[in-house]
Amino acid sequence: MKIFPQIQSGQALVIGGNRGIGLGFVQHLLNHEQFDQIFATYRTESSSTELLHLAQQHPKRLHCITMDLTDEAQIAHGLSQLQAVTPQLHLVINCVGFLHGGAITPEKALRQLNPEHLIRYFQVNSISAALLAKHLQPLLNHKQPNIFATISAKIGSIEDNHLGGWYGYRASKAALNMFLKTAAIEYSRRSPHTAIVMLHPGTTATRLSKPFQRNVPERKLFPVEKTVGLLMDVLSHITLDDNGSFFSWDGSPLPW
Amino acid sequence: MKIFPQIQSGQALVIGGNRGIGLGFVQHLLNHEQFDQIFATYRTESSSTELLHLAQQHPKRLHCITMDLTDEAQIAHGLSQLQAVTPQLHLVINCVGFLHGGAITPEKALRQLNPEHLIRYFQVNSISAALLAKHLQPLLNHKQPNIFATISAKIGSIEDNHLGGWYGYRASKAALNMFLKTAAIEYSRRSPHTAIVMLHPGTTATRLSKPFQRNVPERKLFPVEKTVGLLMDVLSHITLDDNGSFFSWDGSPLPW
Repeated sequence: MKIFPQIQSGQALVIGGNRGIGLGFVQHLLNHEQFDQIFATYRTESSSTELLHLAQQHPKRLHCITMDLTDEAQIAHGLSQLQAVTPQLHLVINCVGFLHGGAITPEKALRQLNPEHLIRYFQVNSISAALLAKHLQPLLNHKQPNIFATISAKIGSIEDNHLGGWYGYRASKAALNMFLKTAAIEYSRRSPHTAIVMLHPGTTATRLSKPFQRNVPERKLFPVEKTVGLLMDVLSHITLDDNGSFFSWDGSPLPW
Repeated sequence: MKIFPQIQSGQALVIGGNRGIGLGFVQHLLNHEQFDQIFATYRTESSSTELLHLAQQHPKRLHCITMDLTDEAQIAHGLSQLQAVTPQLHLVINCVGFLHGGAITPEKALRQLNPEHLIRYFQVNSISAALLAKHLQPLLNHKQPNIFATISAKIGSIEDNHLGGWYGYRASKAALNMFLKTAAIEYSRRSPHTAIVMLHPGTTATRLSKPFQRNVPERKLFPVEKTVGLLMDVLSHITLDDNGSFFSWDGSPLPW
């Protein structure tokens, strides 16, 4: 049975809701009635102007929480703030991901590998989601069906890897998929009303993909609104049987 | 065409040759004529008594090199020592892996996740192999067919994960598989005579599996010699077409 139609007056949380796909989800959820309250996390105020402005416009529906996912204490603290407002969540969308920034760019070749950069990829793209799965359990372990979705990437599919390159990003997304598949198994025992799913958004016109957009055909570069619409459609079809699965933006299952 | 029969008077390198499966490979290679010289790495003398004793018995054939794979400088330095003896390698078997030790035990549940422990798993089980692939290139980029094999684990297969638990170990092995699949693609362009393969050894009676052996039926717990014999048999069938593949001890391909 599809989970989405069963959610009424739901509570949603968007992790990394300040920019890109995350901000797109916040805007989408604000424009629809299904979720009474929307929580959105951001890391720094300076990168979150638009989100914080939205929160001023929707003071009763949108709540912003600071959270750096590479710091477990901030995850615990942020979710305890959320718990002071609501004891349960019905939809969590984790949109945090890191591809380039500071001294880090995706490696084209082995000679560019840097162990500290690789650790950074694992911290932001993989360990973060495992820690979220850990700390979200009390908020998702209730009797109403709910979804914990994370933006992964087809480029994190080992099976689908034909081009090579982007070592750190690829390996961190494969690790993310393993963490969440493993969490899905644990949740199915402890909190059998949650579907944990991973989503491939397609290449979306965001800051993350910006340096790499020139090789993407225009029709394959989605505006944020399109990606969000497609992924909301995928989410609207999710059932509890999909727990632990990996879907593309068109709803097709992806190989690991 | 099978690679092994084409190797004559070869040079072999066993990473982590001081204990467990790695030491078993060193012993096996010493007992066979195919490889003129065998290089073996170890991390600390105190954990390498048997290996260092073997080196005293075989001063011309066995060369020991200290190498901590979590320190890229040590990888580079160790392989430069090796290059002073031989310009090329024909077989590399990477047996370094970490499951438990110090304060770290495999996590049975999300509540046991510790981000520092997770980083340690990625450093020892995943990043290490990517750095090896980086620094081994000059030694494998020659005209004779050669193999770079790494001990992975079926428990690192996302597809095959039905039991859950062991978050850090599972995710680090999935990341290892992605790193080496990606390296295989790069090698096929730059060094098209190398087959990079990942091997699942089965549960072997070593220090790594010791705390977890009681649930393993006796016939499924392999002595080191048996595992080494099975994996050597798998290696003896490898062709260049197998580059980037993941095999079980019985030669069957494993899903990612």
